Amino acid sequence: MESSRWKYIAIIATAALATVLIALLLVNIFTRKQEARQAYVAVTNLTEDTIEPAEWGKNFPREYDGFKLTSSTGPETRTRYGGSEAFSKLDQDPRLKTIFAGYAFALDYREERGHAYSLRDQDETERTKKKPQPGSCLHCHGSMLPAWRAAGNGDIQKGFEAICAMPFKEARQKVTHPIGCIDCHDPKTMALRVTRPGFLNGIKAYMKTAKGIDNYDPNTMASRQEMRTYVCGQCHVEYYFKPEGKAVTYPWAKGLKIENIEAYYDEIKFSDWKHGETGAPVLKAQHPEFEMFNQGIHSRAGVACADCHMPYKREGAMKVSDHWVRSPLRNIERACLVCHPFSAEEMKARVETIQDRNKALLDRAEEAVVALIHDIKDAKEKGATDEQLAPAFKAQRSAQFRSDFINAENSMGFHAPQEAARILAESIDIARQGQLAVRGLNLANAPKLRASTK
Amino acid sequence: MESSRWKYIAIIATAALATVLIALLLVNIFTRKQEARQAYVAVTNLTEDTIEPAEWGKNFPREYDGFKLTSSTGPETRTRYGGSEAFSKLDQDPRLKTIFAGYAFALDYREERGHAYSLRDQDETERTKKKPQPGSCLHCHGSMLPAWRAAGNGDIQKGFEAICAMPFKEARQKVTHPIGCIDCHDPKTMALRVTRPGFLNGIKAYMKTAKGIDNYDPNTMASRQEMRTYVCGQCHVEYYFKPEGKAVTYPWAKGLKIENIEAYYDEIKFSDWKHGETGAPVLKAQHPEFEMFNQGIHSRAGVACADCHMPYKREGAMKVSDHWVRSPLRNIERACLVCHPFSAEEMKARVETIQDRNKALLDRAEEAVVALIHDIKDAKEKGATDEQLAPAFKAQRSAQFRSDFINAENSMGFHAPQEAARILAESIDIARQGQLAVRGLNLANAPKLRASTK
Repeated sequence: MESSRWKYIAIIATAALATVLIALLLVNIFTRKQEARQAYVAVTNLTEDTIEPAEWGKNFPREYDGFKLTSSTGPETRTRYGGSEAFSKLDQDPRLKTIFAGYAFALDYREERGHAYSLRDQDETERTKKKPQPGSCLHCHGSMLPAWRAAGNGDIQKGFEAICAMPFKEARQKVTHPIGCIDCHDPKTMALRVTRPGFLNGIKAYMKTAKGIDNYDPNTMASRQEMRTYVCGQCHVEYYFKPEGKAVTYPWAKGLKIENIEAYYDEIKFSDWKHGETGAPVLKAQHPEFEMFNQGIHSRAGVACADCHMPYKREGAMKVSDHWVRSPLRNIERACLVCHPFSAEEMKARVETIQDRNKALLDRAEEAVVALIHDIKDAKEKGATDEQLAPAFKAQRSAQFRSDFINAENSMGFHAPQEAARILAESIDIARQGQLAVRGLNLANAPKLRASTK
Repeated sequence: MESSRWKYIAIIATAALATVLIALLLVNIFTRKQEARQAYVAVTNLTEDTIEPAEWGKNFPREYDGFKLTSSTGPETRTRYGGSEAFSKLDQDPRLKTIFAGYAFALDYREERGHAYSLRDQDETERTKKKPQPGSCLHCHGSMLPAWRAAGNGDIQKGFEAICAMPFKEARQKVTHPIGCIDCHDPKTMALRVTRPGFLNGIKAYMKTAKGIDNYDPNTMASRQEMRTYVCGQCHVEYYFKPEGKAVTYPWAKGLKIENIEAYYDEIKFSDWKHGETGAPVLKAQHPEFEMFNQGIHSRAGVACADCHMPYKREGAMKVSDHWVRSPLRNIERACLVCHPFSAEEMKARVETIQDRNKALLDRAEEAVVALIHDIKDAKEKGATDEQLAPAFKAQRSAQFRSDFINAENSMGFHAPQEAARILAESIDIARQGQLAVRGLNLANAPKLRASTK
């Protein structure tokens, strides 16, 4: 009898302990769930007219904390070849003054700062001050949706076209904020979305050519992972302003590779400016990160821009996408080590090995382009006609666009190392062959040009 | 009473079932262990004089099965840019006849076949037949250890030097087998080992310069994983024959990169031959797989040659290192998919994207080198002196060595894609600048050379 009473007590004690433990577990789960839910409880009502990021920040304080950090410009943002300090690229690389002679970029060409500066940097560049620019610049430099909607009476494409056609100063009045939350997120669902007409039109043309897809619309047809690249590709691309109406246009109808883009420009006989020293009709590459990334191994492996530039981080029990968009080199543990089981030091060394090689080739390519420009200039002074110089002009246009494509692209070759090297090798070859063509001319005033620059 | 009998029966039945199952398991384990052990039971006694692979095959039939397959030469060995068929590289790429003019490689230059052919291919090449070669060639083409030991009275380095100094025909008499088991394995322990004096001397010089290590000896100081690369690096390297004594030498004392190797050759004023059309003292690159692999990401990630070229496979319960050494492209599942979680089709497409880009750049570089050769030849015909042409000779030497380095390297750029592109870009730049130098000469007989070749 005694032993069966003990048995009874033991069973009750065990059951009680189990109950307590399960209760504790449930409380913990509930607390964590509350924590997780809290961030998404609407404190304020966001609409298509809420462009002030601080307002979005009331509902999403963690993401907003990150976004605010894009205003950092100190040494903590610097990498070997980039950062968020507005240092002058012209001072750092004087060859660019020759390469961009006669164009606004020879006046002022600075390293980009973080997203928070997108509007202010546009206001402050000497390019805008000294040469009249169109409203097109705001396509990427401002939070444009309400302005486009208003200008187009609800039709964004029409409003976008109207604002592109305005002088910059007029268009600027309609904009109050640099790019912000609303540019990539639906205010009701927080879903990622593409809002830039330039990208929507460009990717539609590309998808038709490359994959035979009609009327491609990323907002309804892309996967979430694709959207994590497309929202960045809205602006980090090569573009031009259509001569008529200045609409921002992405030259992707023949493909995303440099030769596709060049063929597109050649076909429509587009040039950004006539070169100040030679008169050749040349092109300015913008910041073709999206195009170059698409030729690289990270893209091929299904990695998105946001995976490395906005990696997930933990805050308490929350997983937050880091909205301090910046170089993965300043965030290696979260950006690289999630996939690559090596030390941060090793990852940095790998990236810098790639970038150093690319920089050496870029220097070589720019030297070749500058040498060609000098040769053409000399030949002109010695009486060469535009007709005689036509092959050299073509070489300058091609070689310059290639070296500029890699110079303007903000990864110093990292996004697609072999592709970048290929493009630079072509730039070198084309520029040097241009020099050979110029020096082969039978000029009335001068039988011989000066010797090689190297 | 009835129920407790049933309970008794149930317990006995369960125990019996468990016993049977455990016995079955033990028998299975024992069988597998036997299988595993069997391959390493010495059927025959292997010594330092056993060079016949079939003899080693008695103890290691699975590895020998693989080794025998290196005699395959059919389409099953072909990849887009390589394989084990002895097709003529000269027919496939006639530019090489100009590039190697005056040298044995302009007579006969074939794709390598598998290891089983290493000796026969050396016997059959027109290079050996038409031009006297030294015994040095056998350093890699034959199973040399016993011959070296005999020639050096036990001292391998001395024997190696003695055989290098012999005419090929004389040295050839001492060799009976192509490279085989004994060249990479210790016959007693089966441990990997480096047997080639060229590699032992070369890596010692390199380790001193690159890492400050004195008297580096891979056989005592390398990890097993390093050895899985070093045994291949014994032969798959850039080398030259020392002018005095023809000892096979790896030019690594300044480093493994092409500019280090070039600086080494420049310092000792070495050239492989005087170019047949220009007279420039030029270099022939061999097959610098080890050097290029060392600049690539697979090496950096700790991958060894054998991981991809001799991947493990299962035979029954055995794990065997595949001794059918060949292109990983013919063995993608085992060579690539062990680390890369993608389809074989995707991996093949990745490799071929890299190789196609590299081939396009290689074509561009060879075109530039050939154009330079033509220009120098023209200038000579028009009276240019060797003194006037000195800068052009230097350009030819540098540009030609660079394009040849990538052409001779057996991965079509895959081992280090960006590095290969960098080297080709330099080749192009140097060749084109060489042309500019030649065309800038003030030649008595001719004021103007012909226009650019492109």
